[in-house]
Amino acid sequence: MDQSPPRSPSVTVADVARKAGVSKATAARVLGGYGTVSDRVRDAVTAAARALDYQPNELARSMTTGRSGTIGVVVGDIENPFFSLAMRGITDVARQAGFTVVLINSGEDAEAEKAAIRTLLAKRVDGLIVSPAKESDVGHLREAARAGRPLVLLDRGSEMLDVDMVIADDRHAAEGITRRLIALGHRRIAYLTACDTPDHRFRTPSDINTGSVRRRIQGFLGVCREAGLDGMEDRVHVGAVTPEHTHRIVTGMLQSSQRPTAIIASDSVIGLEVFKVCRALGLSIPDDLSLVSFHDADWTSVTTPPVTVVRQPVYRLGETAAKLLVERLNGNHAEASRVVLQTKVIERASVAEAPV
Amino acid sequence: MDQSPPRSPSVTVADVARKAGVSKATAARVLGGYGTVSDRVRDAVTAAARALDYQPNELARSMTTGRSGTIGVVVGDIENPFFSLAMRGITDVARQAGFTVVLINSGEDAEAEKAAIRTLLAKRVDGLIVSPAKESDVGHLREAARAGRPLVLLDRGSEMLDVDMVIADDRHAAEGITRRLIALGHRRIAYLTACDTPDHRFRTPSDINTGSVRRRIQGFLGVCREAGLDGMEDRVHVGAVTPEHTHRIVTGMLQSSQRPTAIIASDSVIGLEVFKVCRALGLSIPDDLSLVSFHDADWTSVTTPPVTVVRQPVYRLGETAAKLLVERLNGNHAEASRVVLQTKVIERASVAEAPV
Repeated sequence: MDQSPPRSPSVTVADVARKAGVSKATAARVLGGYGTVSDRVRDAVTAAARALDYQPNELARSMTTGRSGTIGVVVGDIENPFFSLAMRGITDVARQAGFTVVLINSGEDAEAEKAAIRTLLAKRVDGLIVSPAKESDVGHLREAARAGRPLVLLDRGSEMLDVDMVIADDRHAAEGITRRLIALGHRRIAYLTACDTPDHRFRTPSDINTGSVRRRIQGFLGVCREAGLDGMEDRVHVGAVTPEHTHRIVTGMLQSSQRPTAIIASDSVIGLEVFKVCRALGLSIPDDLSLVSFHDADWTSVTTPPVTVVRQPVYRLGETAAKLLVERLNGNHAEASRVVLQTKVIERASVAEAPV
Repeated sequence: MDQSPPRSPSVTVADVARKAGVSKATAARVLGGYGTVSDRVRDAVTAAARALDYQPNELARSMTTGRSGTIGVVVGDIENPFFSLAMRGITDVARQAGFTVVLINSGEDAEAEKAAIRTLLAKRVDGLIVSPAKESDVGHLREAARAGRPLVLLDRGSEMLDVDMVIADDRHAAEGITRRLIALGHRRIAYLTACDTPDHRFRTPSDINTGSVRRRIQGFLGVCREAGLDGMEDRVHVGAVTPEHTHRIVTGMLQSSQRPTAIIASDSVIGLEVFKVCRALGLSIPDDLSLVSFHDADWTSVTTPPVTVVRQPVYRLGETAAKLLVERLNGNHAEASRVVLQTKVIERASVAEAPV
């Protein structure tokens, strides 16, 4: 515990109440994020708390509410800017509601995820936000939810769990970009994902355990079939788990006789590596290869050419997940909700007509 | 707790010992990371554990060792690729040693950092790795160390704490790039950092609370003075805390009559924003402006031109910090050590002679 003297006299709930001109009980309701008050009162208390630099006393709250004031988050790969941005959305909401966010990285490994959930439950987090590594392997999450710890799934749903989930309309996004590529004359379109299968080969979408990616591949294959392109399953490549893996896979496909004229990268880490391999092989984007990447990562707008991307509502995914969790922690017992957020294609200059 | 049936029969320490051909006590020493064994025995046990997919039983260990098996990490900004890469270094070492890593993001806010430390101590982490937001405000860290929780400082030291720390040779790196820019004829060289001061102005390095950045600025100013450039304090810009802030600061400096001919960006998030502002203003890198960025972020090699960077040993910073912490947890009582890792300038194409 921090036993050093406080830098400034502690601001109490009573101080905030006085400044806001409300009762102490009302101020406590707003600051503790429980009960209902009018928007006007909430705004007044929030403004007063900010003006006085009020810091909630975690220990006191924990004693009166039985809560530890922490939310546990388990994501697949915090090095992927997708997850670090979603984390900001989570943290901004949690902090506002007075919760500290504790993060464990699963490395997209289901066993590590189970250990992470065990650790977080043992450390008495109040609730969990999880991006499950495998949607079919969620027994540990079901147990957590049954044990009374609210759980929200982030970016990946699971048909096997009756809990709140926030996902993006991945299938629709993949359909849109696939249609666009086909309209530009592309036939040899590759889809590349970090998701892997036991033998590192793709046969059918049900091989893919990560729902967001499975839905994208379903969208991609569905539009290809509509357009009369068959056997596109062979153009779905899995296992781009590290930049080195991605480099090897992309080099292989771009050096084959039937090399793709377009690649859809399932995340920005893969998109960046496709870009690097093209440079290394002396291939021009978009003249030799069109590239579309999921996730509007910061760097995608500064390359030459800038990269056409699927902008996912990443910050809002995190924000919404945290809001749903805080509502559960505040006693919302309504049925589990499934929130689907819209994506948007940002057209830049990495997509062109297929080379003849 | 995960009460679902295990997917495969649990592998025990006895199984690992049998496969490695050593006693159970010896296998337990290796797997628990305590005591000493020969390299040969360690390798045999590690290989056996890997072959059998041995998962340490956290609960059992916690009961015998009094440890929770978790390491708490507090960093400034997990969205900065610097910290997410350092986290991988930490996590790789920790996992190998059987620890789960729990992360809290401080947002570079000293008060949030104090709350994070309180939370982690209350949750009984075994040790801490912290990148302090303010080196002068570390009473809470001293208390944590005094309370018997080993603490290692990451990337930022503090003269006020007698604990292990791992930092990069920031001053030397800044001196090197400043000399190079001056040799190319640059006189109006700006240094831009996210660190802030109360009035958002820079006067002297002691204004800067983050040691790594303070050392860089000291190096920058020292070399400038040697070269007869005075008053360069006015060219140190603070408060580039978000891309929006950076955009405003950079636009302002590039539109001034005495605009810089070179910018040193203190991290890759800032470097990226400088790049974007140049595009927006129609300025050419390196013809109109030379750019050097700290941190060899992935994207820096794919821009046109690719960016000259100071490659910091980021992964090794994390890895080394975790190794020092694990050694402390295993009973190392030696004096606190201060490890300084070398940086390297990667010359790409964003630096050229100063425009005449």
